[in-house]
Amino acid sequence: MRVHNFSAGPAQLPLPVLERAAAELTDWRGTGMSVLEDSHRGKDFIACAAQAEAAFRRVAALPDNYRVLFLAGGATGQFSAVPANLAARGATAAFINTGQWSAKAAKEAKRQGLNVVTIADESASHYTTTPDPASLIIPADAAYLHYTPNETIGGVEFPYVPDAGDTPLVADFSSTYLSRPVDFSRFGVVYGGAQKNLGPAGLAVVLVRDDLLDRARPDVPAIWDWRTMVDKDSMLNTPPTFSVYLLGLILEWMEEQGGLATIGAANEAKARSLYEAIDASDFYANPVEPRSRSWMNIPFTLADPALDADFLAGAAREGLANLKGHRSVGGMRASLYNAMGADGVAALIDYMTEFERVHG
Amino acid sequence: MRVHNFSAGPAQLPLPVLERAAAELTDWRGTGMSVLEDSHRGKDFIACAAQAEAAFRRVAALPDNYRVLFLAGGATGQFSAVPANLAARGATAAFINTGQWSAKAAKEAKRQGLNVVTIADESASHYTTTPDPASLIIPADAAYLHYTPNETIGGVEFPYVPDAGDTPLVADFSSTYLSRPVDFSRFGVVYGGAQKNLGPAGLAVVLVRDDLLDRARPDVPAIWDWRTMVDKDSMLNTPPTFSVYLLGLILEWMEEQGGLATIGAANEAKARSLYEAIDASDFYANPVEPRSRSWMNIPFTLADPALDADFLAGAAREGLANLKGHRSVGGMRASLYNAMGADGVAALIDYMTEFERVHG
Repeated sequence: MRVHNFSAGPAQLPLPVLERAAAELTDWRGTGMSVLEDSHRGKDFIACAAQAEAAFRRVAALPDNYRVLFLAGGATGQFSAVPANLAARGATAAFINTGQWSAKAAKEAKRQGLNVVTIADESASHYTTTPDPASLIIPADAAYLHYTPNETIGGVEFPYVPDAGDTPLVADFSSTYLSRPVDFSRFGVVYGGAQKNLGPAGLAVVLVRDDLLDRARPDVPAIWDWRTMVDKDSMLNTPPTFSVYLLGLILEWMEEQGGLATIGAANEAKARSLYEAIDASDFYANPVEPRSRSWMNIPFTLADPALDADFLAGAAREGLANLKGHRSVGGMRASLYNAMGADGVAALIDYMTEFERVHG
Repeated sequence: MRVHNFSAGPAQLPLPVLERAAAELTDWRGTGMSVLEDSHRGKDFIACAAQAEAAFRRVAALPDNYRVLFLAGGATGQFSAVPANLAARGATAAFINTGQWSAKAAKEAKRQGLNVVTIADESASHYTTTPDPASLIIPADAAYLHYTPNETIGGVEFPYVPDAGDTPLVADFSSTYLSRPVDFSRFGVVYGGAQKNLGPAGLAVVLVRDDLLDRARPDVPAIWDWRTMVDKDSMLNTPPTFSVYLLGLILEWMEEQGGLATIGAANEAKARSLYEAIDASDFYANPVEPRSRSWMNIPFTLADPALDADFLAGAAREGLANLKGHRSVGGMRASLYNAMGADGVAALIDYMTEFERVHG
């Protein structure tokens, strides 16, 4: 019995992808070995990685002047790698603070020696808002502007792409990567962990515009040296091969679904139905200002927190898993990534309605 | 049909481990989800990671004053992390150069600002030797001594553990990790990529003696900050969960085999039988001095390199895969990690004998 898994990440994956991976886990495409066992220098894996990159470019509609890197260490690794690739120690970088993930990115940039200027800080609203786009003033000497399009914990999402002018725009897309069409030409660097919409934990997908490849410090760690990794097709060292393979399968599945236009529309519809159910009730509440509500991560509270444990226990009995909210926010959180079907959201809403009928 | 896979890494894994992973890839231990999909903050995965660590400690007979870390970025990531955790910029570290991997570790230590003193350099023998232990003189101010117990490319292995005195001894165990009993109390830090004896690519297993945890630079990248990762049970950020899970299954399999004493004896016997076949023939040759021959990676050349392509094509037809030698060494290389059975080595020797009979 498969559950509906609302985990914020690692997260639900498409069942056909898992079934295919299971079927070929001891004999991959006639090689007589698992993809887990094959050399990353062999023709089969090189083709697998090249196919994943080509599929990513197609699905994302990525402009030709961007490189795609498959790197180890997740988004938190790139928190360290971005400053080391883009700015000297002591340089200035601008950050927008909309929650715990953007704050962590800024903290690590400081550790890497940057002068971090926070040009917008939403902590006063307890991270339930995004800034007015007209309020964003970028220091003239900023090496880049960093922001987090979707905050996984707060469930806050930018309804716009900030206008950074000539300053390179850098974004942590971890929890919204390939969840809808995006004009990537607006960005200088995009990065994100795969473990939400793109596959298993252990892989960061990094997109770098060509003109930003040669700004690295001499001591950037080798495995995060974007220029070297571009020249080595992300294989300076052994890449996380199984993660790249699964990413390729997931991108195939995304193309079978109709690509980002279809997937984005489905994601919007899933989120809207859950927000409508929450807003129609006095029993449930979501704290985020409507224009900044995330399609991906939807926190909600019960009017009486004493019922939280009952709610979660009953949900688990109904096959609705991983709904407990982040410890810093409390209550519940439903993450509705690409692989969450409309049936899963409908089952959650049915359960919420019934729970309110009994306990409300 | 499963082949015998002699890849240097990623490498052959135990078939029962792959079969179990395949069987539970869509429903892991009754959770109704894959281990790939489960939150790393949930009780099931936390138990899985704790079991893997406990099994590692048991199998390795690791003393209590060592921490076990599961980190992203492989051994090449630790090439950057070791200097940043152990020494200030400008400090001295001693290196033994026995091949490409120790050279790469030293190069990255230089990039991270260390004064690298090479106290033994085997390049004059084309990396077919290890130094005389009595010749190793460690500078008094060295923050640590680094060496590579087994060189995957050259097939050179130390027949002894260097005596580093009071200097912390640091070793890249990637291609010999848990291949036989080792007295880990001789070491300050041990690290290695998992993709040889311990599982899939994408995971480094790092062992740190307690007294070495608090020497890090303030700007060590967060995901490689050993102290932080000890305090966070290797989960400052999302770990490569599937790799940790598979490591746990492989450690279970190792215990079923009888542990490191049994596995080490089997590895020695496998290697001995292949070296004996090579040495008994004028058609095949291994260039490494006998006392420094690796149990794990056995390069060999054919008397006539014009036959290399025929040898490899015939081997592939016999289900003997990934025998092509590293491009820098040429010829063949057979990697005989823990999961390579004696039957695979026997099949290789039979094939070599028949090939020599026809072409010799």
